[in-house]
Amino acid sequence: MHKPLLAAEVSEPGPQPGLGGPVIGIIGSGDFSRSLAARLVASGFRVAVGSRAPGRVSRAAFPAGAELCSQGEAAQRADRLLFVAVYPEHYHSLLGLSQQLQGKVLVDVSNASSLSRQEQSNAERLAQLFPQSSVVKGFNVLSAWALQAGACDGNRQVPICSDEADSKVAVLQLARRLGFSPVDVGGLCAARGVEEAPLVLFPSWGRPILLTFLLFLFFYGYNFLRHILLPFLDQGENNFYQLPLVTVNDTLPAVALVTLALVYLPGLVAAVFQLARGTKYKRFPGWLDGWLCSRKQLGLLSFLCAGLHAVYSMCLTLRSAAGYTLLNTAYHQVKAGVENSWVEQLVWRSDLYLSCGILGLGILALLAVTSLPSVGNALNWREFTFVQSGLGYAALTLSIMHTLFFGWDFAFFPSAYRYYLPPVYLLALILPCTVLVGRVFLALPCLMFRLAKIRRGWECTRHRPPNHLEPEATGDV
Amino acid sequence: MHKPLLAAEVSEPGPQPGLGGPVIGIIGSGDFSRSLAARLVASGFRVAVGSRAPGRVSRAAFPAGAELCSQGEAAQRADRLLFVAVYPEHYHSLLGLSQQLQGKVLVDVSNASSLSRQEQSNAERLAQLFPQSSVVKGFNVLSAWALQAGACDGNRQVPICSDEADSKVAVLQLARRLGFSPVDVGGLCAARGVEEAPLVLFPSWGRPILLTFLLFLFFYGYNFLRHILLPFLDQGENNFYQLPLVTVNDTLPAVALVTLALVYLPGLVAAVFQLARGTKYKRFPGWLDGWLCSRKQLGLLSFLCAGLHAVYSMCLTLRSAAGYTLLNTAYHQVKAGVENSWVEQLVWRSDLYLSCGILGLGILALLAVTSLPSVGNALNWREFTFVQSGLGYAALTLSIMHTLFFGWDFAFFPSAYRYYLPPVYLLALILPCTVLVGRVFLALPCLMFRLAKIRRGWECTRHRPPNHLEPEATGDV
Amino acid sequence: MHKPLLAAEVSEPGPQPGLGGPVIGIIGSGDFSRSLAARLVASGFRVAVGSRAPGRVSRAAFPAGAELCSQGEAAQRADRLLFVAVYPEHYHSLLGLSQQLQGKVLVDVSNASSLSRQEQSNAERLAQLFPQSSVVKGFNVLSAWALQAGACDGNRQVPICSDEADSKVAVLQLARRLGFSPVDVGGLCAARGVEEAPLVLFPSWGRPILLTFLLFLFFYGYNFLRHILLPFLDQGENNFYQLPLVTVNDTLPAVALVTLALVYLPGLVAAVFQLARGTKYKRFPGWLDGWLCSRKQLGLLSFLCAGLHAVYSMCLTLRSAAGYTLLNTAYHQVKAGVENSWVEQLVWRSDLYLSCGILGLGILALLAVTSLPSVGNALNWREFTFVQSGLGYAALTLSIMHTLFFGWDFAFFPSAYRYYLPPVYLLALILPCTVLVGRVFLALPCLMFRLAKIRRGWECTRHRPPNHLEPEATGDV
Repeated sequence: MHKPLLAAEVSEPGPQPGLGGPVIGIIGSGDFSRSLAARLVASGFRVAVGSRAPGRVSRAAFPAGAELCSQGEAAQRADRLLFVAVYPEHYHSLLGLSQQLQGKVLVDVSNASSLSRQEQSNAERLAQLFPQSSVVKGFNVLSAWALQAGACDGNRQVPICSDEADSKVAVLQLARRLGFSPVDVGGLCAARGVEEAPLVLFPSWGRPILLTFLLFLFFYGYNFLRHILLPFLDQGENNFYQLPLVTVNDTLPAVALVTLALVYLPGLVAAVFQLARGTKYKRFPGWLDGWLCSRKQLGLLSFLCAGLHAVYSMCLTLRSAAGYTLLNTAYHQVKAGVENSWVEQLVWRSDLYLSCGILGLGILALLAVTSLPSVGNALNWREFTFVQSGLGYAALTLSIMHTLFFGWDFAFFPSAYRYYLPPVYLLALILPCTVLVGRVFLALPCLMFRLAKIRRGWECTRHRPPNHLEPEATGDV
Repeated sequence: MHKPLLAAEVSEPGPQPGLGGPVIGIIGSGDFSRSLAARLVASGFRVAVGSRAPGRVSRAAFPAGAELCSQGEAAQRADRLLFVAVYPEHYHSLLGLSQQLQGKVLVDVSNASSLSRQEQSNAERLAQLFPQSSVVKGFNVLSAWALQAGACDGNRQVPICSDEADSKVAVLQLARRLGFSPVDVGGLCAARGVEEAPLVLFPSWGRPILLTFLLFLFFYGYNFLRHILLPFLDQGENNFYQLPLVTVNDTLPAVALVTLALVYLPGLVAAVFQLARGTKYKRFPGWLDGWLCSRKQLGLLSFLCAGLHAVYSMCLTLRSAAGYTLLNTAYHQVKAGVENSWVEQLVWRSDLYLSCGILGLGILALLAVTSLPSVGNALNWREFTFVQSGLGYAALTLSIMHTLFFGWDFAFFPSAYRYYLPPVYLLALILPCTVLVGRVFLALPCLMFRLAKIRRGWECTRHRPPNHLEPEATGDV
Repeated sequence: MHKPLLAAEVSEPGPQPGLGGPVIGIIGSGDFSRSLAARLVASGFRVAVGSRAPGRVSRAAFPAGAELCSQGEAAQRADRLLFVAVYPEHYHSLLGLSQQLQGKVLVDVSNASSLSRQEQSNAERLAQLFPQSSVVKGFNVLSAWALQAGACDGNRQVPICSDEADSKVAVLQLARRLGFSPVDVGGLCAARGVEEAPLVLFPSWGRPILLTFLLFLFFYGYNFLRHILLPFLDQGENNFYQLPLVTVNDTLPAVALVTLALVYLPGLVAAVFQLARGTKYKRFPGWLDGWLCSRKQLGLLSFLCAGLHAVYSMCLTLRSAAGYTLLNTAYHQVKAGVENSWVEQLVWRSDLYLSCGILGLGILALLAVTSLPSVGNALNWREFTFVQSGLGYAALTLSIMHTLFFGWDFAFFPSAYRYYLPPVYLLALILPCTVLVGRVFLALPCLMFRLAKIRRGWECTRHRPPNHLEPEATGDV
């Protein structure tokens, strides 16, 4: 269907659509209240909207099924569930209703006004104000817009939490009835997180992006210094025209390579930790946990840089500069009477590094595709490992070869160390090569088997009371 | 699993698989009936297939669990649900069964034969024929093929509608049991839409594609006139070889740029409407609503054109023409004895417009990725806004810069106006620049704050009875 | 939410979170047991973990909610469900508990140790050992890791099977409670498949990849022979520098073209089968079924090759070789005093084949996008057909034109048959052209209508008892 606006997945023989349905109360007649009422009516509920001054609210804004009444009436009419669509700073104004709200389930739909985990959550404040009602946090991640145009994100997750189990279940069911997929995130203590959910901006991406950006700055600066500034100060060479494109294109591959290495480094570190501790049941230090969790982001950023590098490179021959250079070379070749300027070795070199680069990028693209939720979820454990680890290391190896073929033997000529600065690609290779060597090292039988055993649950005895029975001994999975 | 062909998500303690299951009736022994029976049996139901002439139907085509009988028997055996797998034009032939069908739930699985919203829906006709049975519309979007190979699209949505709530719930549950995700789309009045759902072909794409195509025709024609036809008529220049590639590549960026501008224009128009009306609760005119809803499609089409433009451009140097031009230029440079044909300014120009173009395309690619359902649904409201609006305007700005750097100062030379026709890129820039200026204008504090207030629900009083209480005053969300 | 680690979709008024929840038993205190316990407690269940030697297990590894006890106690405490988290080879060690396990539901979470469909499944062995308990197979596809970090793949499917319906339903509900989407795959006979599910590696990809790889080997070898080896042996030409890039880039398009043809060939074969048999209710031979099922994979592989070919081609001008060739040509042009080396015909040729190639690739890209689960599921039947068949054939036609324009009239010069070997592109064209011709042939009215009738369920009488009533006659869908 193209507009399941009235989408309501009735998954249990609970309240039925139609006039016989239960009455859901909404306190507050604002924007959210209007959209919510529309959605509830569409899903076959009766709705009682309680406004401070019902007479004064423009009736038209509410659907036919909804009835406008005073807040008190709404509280009374509601069979069990009541949405509190009032700004948190006005909660106290509802204290007068505590009688009618007694024993009812209050759904707090408010968002946090700022990101400051210290503060108490609105839901908890509401719960304190109305000790005799049970408070459930939820629906706040849905904008009024999302409530109306449910089609566009019908399967958006709606985190819901509460300390009262039954009330929570009721709200979870309601959420599903309205076409959303509720997620139980535990007790009311989680409410603050839920309230701040709509405010956070790509929380898991912040650090990886910052890291990549810093890497970019470093390598760009290094290139600028080495190829543009120093030659200019030294011999007055004017290479500034390289700034917008050439230098960027020299920088991107370095960033991509280092970032890709950073994707696989934490895995090695973790392995070392487990080997050293002889168990996998000790938690990793926080920084390692965080690093392990941001591997996907780092990988995608690496792919982004690699992709841009590819496009930039393929545009190199489009540049006027390329044309001029070629023409001038042709001119000199003719003048010098060189009939054939072919250099077999350089031909091999360029073809080899192009091939490696293209294949490496292709594999990275496959990895990127499998990181799409809908694709990744279709993989089983072994497939996931094969793609992420197997293909990943293949891509890393190919990228390193790409760089090595590009650098060729230049690293061994002093001329490559202009102003005593090593070429960028050498710097960029350090970390990736370390990772690769480390990986090979961990593949040594002795280490590999021990690691496999540890990962299977085995624990090195000296780390535990000697009389400990090993899981494997009892055959526990 | 790789073939959850028998997938049946038992989500409620309803009928259990196995012999003890309830009997589902199917009237009609055609193709759909066979597949449906197979699926039902696989999910643990007993099935009674009613054929006009059971003896004559090839038993083999039906699964073991299903029993073939007369239509009357099938109607009787069925505990509650009966699928009517008969062509609508034969519904009247079932009138004889009205006794046995009394109080049963008839599921109408027929599709519309043509797209003509005027007509009455088959389901409604069925309901009229059998007033004592309750009719539910559904399952028609599933082809016989989809019913059998459920694996491939197990989570396809199945719109279901009916006027009887309980019957609808029963069918919704059954649909889930069979591994589909049912969607309640309301009363039987929605049946016509459901019946036509399988017939429509990308309804939301028609207009955007048409628009883009017309834009393409216009710019292609303009380029043809300006670079090929007129020069040919005028000086007999033969540029016809440009038709297949060069002209297309001159046209695509213009189309992409204008289309991208059309993505952000409606947002500005909507803002102006809201500012002028001083409220957001008045509906937008239909054309604006439609426009707002097709922004995603326009954006993707713009990305498609931009992407093609990029590929075309990167292939430019592969063309024989490019080679010949370069060779001839080399020849003349040598003849003219020009040792260095380097033009610093043109070098900068080409590098700058290439960079802007590449970055703009990169951002558009990110936008395209977030428009994938599985990705977009993972974004919260703020992230969605940031990507669509923030990144979107960044892409627009970069594209405009790309075009400006490309055009450089040529616009100021009369020579650029061959035959008094301005260069294409000038035409293409008009709309995008307008949008950008408009956006900047709306960012003026006075307007911005007023707009924010309006979008928060505030309404300019002069548009409402003066005694109206403002939502914010009552603190309603 | 960003970490619905405690995700538990309570979709039925079953056991509620909190202390009042039912007790789930787990036999075995290994790794899986620890993660499972954590997840269960998080979803509000009480857990009794039965270890052979509870005193000796490190308590810390288990969540607060879980109680450690002897296996016997765990069996007793468990209200109904008991997870058997013990290696299959130790099942017999539990025989002592058969009393306490009587009437309980045992969930077998073990994986197969190897891929050998012959063997009896662990679950079936467990069922034999404990005839008085009912055994359900499930949860084995979830690694301990997946159980803990539910966030990452919260909606992973969990296949579950059992011979006892009610027990299965209970486990299905539990799985949903824990935030997974269970899939009922039938009786315990399916257990073996479920146990091997985590071991298989892209089962549906094996053959298509092998086929594509063999095609690549063949064409690569052919190119090597024709362009490198024979010229070397014959005239000592040294073209070995072409191996890494040029030859690969000559091979990829041929592979892509043939693979794409293999996507559409089975459809034609199937149509011929149906026409010949006059019915669609006879099963196709196995090889054809398998072929039809791997069309998607073949299509994606074809797209991969085509994409690589595009990138390789766009890198051609980046190669040193390209530069040298151009310079040398320039040199000779100057020496020869040829002012203009322009060849109109070759210009047209290159522009035409580039255009066709780019457009063909663009369409293939669209096809690839629609093959993403989240996108494909949003298409209705007609849209799916339009994209896969309509656009698919358009892509095939464009690719063929791309090749024809590339080959131009060279095929008619004897010089094209060096060493009596036809050029690769001729070989690559055979199959695609056959498919295209076959498609056109099937579009002949007489065949088309008959096929349409057959696909609508009509059967040619001579294949059935003459007195058979045709579905259409009874108007059955």
